Amino acid sequence: MTASTKGRFITVEGTEGVGKSTNMAYVKQWLESKGHEVIHTREPGGTPFAEEIRELLLSKREEKVNSQTELLLMFAARCQHVYQKIQPALERGAWVLCDRFTDASFAYQGAGRDLGFEKLRQLEAWSLQGFKPDLTLMLDLPIEVGLERARKRGPVDRFEEEKIEFFKKVRQGYLDIAATEPERMKVINAEGTVEEVQLQIEKVLAVFYRQVMS
Amino acid sequence: MTASTKGRFITVEGTEGVGKSTNMAYVKQWLESKGHEVIHTREPGGTPFAEEIRELLLSKREEKVNSQTELLLMFAARCQHVYQKIQPALERGAWVLCDRFTDASFAYQGAGRDLGFEKLRQLEAWSLQGFKPDLTLMLDLPIEVGLERARKRGPVDRFEEEKIEFFKKVRQGYLDIAATEPERMKVINAEGTVEEVQLQIEKVLAVFYRQVMS
Ligand SMILES: Nc1ncnc2c1ncn2[C@@H]1O[C@H](COP(=O)(O)OP(=O)(O)O)[C@@H](O)[C@H]1O
Ligand SMILES: Nc1ncnc2c1ncn2[C@@H]1O[C@H](COP(=O)(O)OP(=O)(O)O)[C@@H](O)[C@H]1O
Ligand SMILES: [Mg+2]
Ligand SMILES: [Mg+2]
Repeated sequence: MTASTKGRFITVEGTEGVGKSTNMAYVKQWLESKGHEVIHTREPGGTPFAEEIRELLLSKREEKVNSQTELLLMFAARCQHVYQKIQPALERGAWVLCDRFTDASFAYQGAGRDLGFEKLRQLEAWSLQGFKPDLTLMLDLPIEVGLERARKRGPVDRFEEEKIEFFKKVRQGYLDIAATEPERMKVINAEGTVEEVQLQIEKVLAVFYRQVMS
Repeated sequence: MTASTKGRFITVEGTEGVGKSTNMAYVKQWLESKGHEVIHTREPGGTPFAEEIRELLLSKREEKVNSQTELLLMFAARCQHVYQKIQPALERGAWVLCDRFTDASFAYQGAGRDLGFEKLRQLEAWSLQGFKPDLTLMLDLPIEVGLERARKRGPVDRFEEEKIEFFKKVRQGYLDIAATEPERMKVINAEGTVEEVQLQIEKVLAVFYRQVMS
């Protein structure tokens, strides 16, 4: 299989309200304009069964959810998503664009809930056998700005109800991953207007595209 | 904490229809007659949230369930069960009696679905940090006899629809665990009448009880 016949896996990451959904559409268009089939998906979820697991994770409940339970559910949904949908799509040449992926578990559960990156790395290795995004766009924004944008958008779920302090740890978690894997994860300053953010994304995409298609 | 103020964790294992539910009641009575508080629980499940995960696992669906997904869901339910219910009960001195536990994952997914014990051991270590039953009663019966008993009992679920060959591997998986951990897992011949089976269980329980209470 040559570089051009196999699809690439691109993820979009960042805390609440940074503009992931908004910019996914832009990235999709950009790739389609190059003539690729693009699959747009999201985590947790992505297949009917994985979406059922997502429902369990996001619904509010009385019972305290153990942090390991939460993480195992995340990776259960992720395995289903990867092996039933993402990998088959990549194999047939489609590009896959995903709203959050493993980095979100590192940032939210590893950094945000203090489980630590090592515990996350073990579960990632067990579940995904080294499968990673080819490129990750990390949209970065001060927490208060993102939450303000998200609140304007509509009602919030269990994760969005967390305290500011939690989200600050999550953002730092993302920045720590980007520092460790600068080739894969590109930090995009998401503070400007939609047009300004997309200009940065376009630059990153163009460089990546030239690399993988050459 | 002395031997007598901390509860013990006893599990009952075996393939479909061997008499787990039937004999759980007997074990419970026996322990209560010694003056202990006994919690009767089951896997997958045991807390409201874990029971929701159980529903996901047992319901029939079109989508192929990836075997790693299945295992991660099992351990998600198990973490919730252990950390929210079993360990707190043991700590306050109750005895906990559970219908299936980690051994069932080793037998069904590890041996039955050919994932292998090593893959299971990694996930067990990640999830439970060495937490194991103090005693396991493994009810053993030729597969055909157990399935015949189970069919007489009522409608079957997704797991019970599996082929005979699968269940033979599961039974062998249980016997392999018993061979490796003969002190913890006791094999009970479940072919006789209910009275005959209970006589064997009573002997095993009495020996165990003398050991831990001395
Ligand atoms: N650059 C931007 N400036 C101002 N508002 C934005 C910007 N990008 C997105 N938004 C708005 O902020 C809200 C959150 O954006 P969204 O894409 O849903 O974020 P996310 O998917 O990361 O939670 C939406 O109402 C969206 O229209
Ligand atoms: N020793 C036995 N001999 C004959 N039938 C039995 C015996 N033990 C249990 N049964 C019956 O077999 C069926 C399956 O038993 P059950 O306890 O539900 O098994 P399990 O919980 O292991 O699936 C029930 O209808 C039960 O009454
Ligand atoms: Mg979004
Ligand atoms: Mg039963």
